[in-house]
Amino acid sequence: MTRPVITAYDWVPDFAKGLVRDLQVRWALEEVGRSYDVRYLSQGSQKAPAHRAQQPFGQVPTYQQGDLVLFESGAIVLHIARTHAGLLPDDPSGRARAIEWMFAALNTVEPPITDYGVAAVLERDQPWSQPRMPAVVARIEERLGDLAARLADAEWLDGSFSAGDLMMVGVLRQLRDSGLVEAHPTLAAYVDRGTARPAFRRALDAQMQGFTGSPPPGFAAWLEKQAQGAAA
Amino acid sequence: MTRPVITAYDWVPDFAKGLVRDLQVRWALEEVGRSYDVRYLSQGSQKAPAHRAQQPFGQVPTYQQGDLVLFESGAIVLHIARTHAGLLPDDPSGRARAIEWMFAALNTVEPPITDYGVAAVLERDQPWSQPRMPAVVARIEERLGDLAARLADAEWLDGSFSAGDLMMVGVLRQLRDSGLVEAHPTLAAYVDRGTARPAFRRALDAQMQGFTGSPPPGFAAWLEKQAQGAAA
Repeated sequence: MTRPVITAYDWVPDFAKGLVRDLQVRWALEEVGRSYDVRYLSQGSQKAPAHRAQQPFGQVPTYQQGDLVLFESGAIVLHIARTHAGLLPDDPSGRARAIEWMFAALNTVEPPITDYGVAAVLERDQPWSQPRMPAVVARIEERLGDLAARLADAEWLDGSFSAGDLMMVGVLRQLRDSGLVEAHPTLAAYVDRGTARPAFRRALDAQMQGFTGSPPPGFAAWLEKQAQGAAA
Repeated sequence: MTRPVITAYDWVPDFAKGLVRDLQVRWALEEVGRSYDVRYLSQGSQKAPAHRAQQPFGQVPTYQQGDLVLFESGAIVLHIARTHAGLLPDDPSGRARAIEWMFAALNTVEPPITDYGVAAVLERDQPWSQPRMPAVVARIEERLGDLAARLADAEWLDGSFSAGDLMMVGVLRQLRDSGLVEAHPTLAAYVDRGTARPAFRRALDAQMQGFTGSPPPGFAAWLEKQAQGAAA
């Protein structure tokens, strides 16, 4: 098989470092022992036609192997899991349930967490951001409570570590500075177990080492405006 | 094979009728010609332990067939698509790309649309709801513009109708009263093509006919409060 090529950014703001979605793809590739190449994009070039031909929404990651080009981190991780051993159980029912947890991570647990990111970063200097935050947090807390209840004191969500755990840990890590996961010690320990895996450490190191580029023109002015908004 | 059993609500508020997520599962089952049974839940019982044993987040739908129990509409539709002919291409690359569009629907296009639903319904009477709406709408418009550019004048997203189109049409239908999809005539036509499919019509009719129950205690008071907020 030819060596897959993924895309990643050569620069992101500090709050996004270690959280860009190529991380989950790198992690999956590391778990299955597959080496890969990275094509780095400078900020702005992800919206150019050349990249949009591979990623219609102008984002990362993409995954290319031979003639196959995929986008969406969930779809890429599932493709890797289905074509290599190690990230899905062998029995069909167990596989279906591991995939179920991938969708649960991305479509049930993540959306309120994305909303938190919007409120805490993108809309931070908007007048509605602080008044709205308790409602945003309450929606996350409901999901985390449900998830903690299901996980209970198990090591992983359904048997052995799977692509479902990989995606769920990836989603929960987005809350790293909020204290919301830490309110559930069993969930915090679950995230710690995931991020202690050697494959995760290699993936994170690789993403961090890839940030060798420069911010786009105008970023410094945007950052200053954000800081003023926060101080106001 | 035993006949699958799904769960659905026996009552929802008018704004949710025709949009509850068992619809996509019914649609997939209709597309592949599979008959099914429905276990209806009254409002409130979805949060009881008996249902949470099948659905940890206390929602619908679930899917049970023999010993296999699944939740998450995306995972259920994918399971149906993978175990029956008609919703995924035969070639592995085409299958991977159809699954990519399922994830794109649920993790890239839907989250800002969910946010719109929160702003327009759940937080409708909150002081921040109207000031925030332009930012919410702008995030949806960016996604719809990207999607329309990729679809161009094609009939479906990637070759023949697939589970990816089924999920994408299901997500776009949530914007039915907003006018946002209609701003892109090719996208509106795409949704119309999807909802004109006989399997979709049967699924929608079945969901609507299932609403034979009563609102939970307190709903009338909540509705009145919402109406007052809208009039204020």
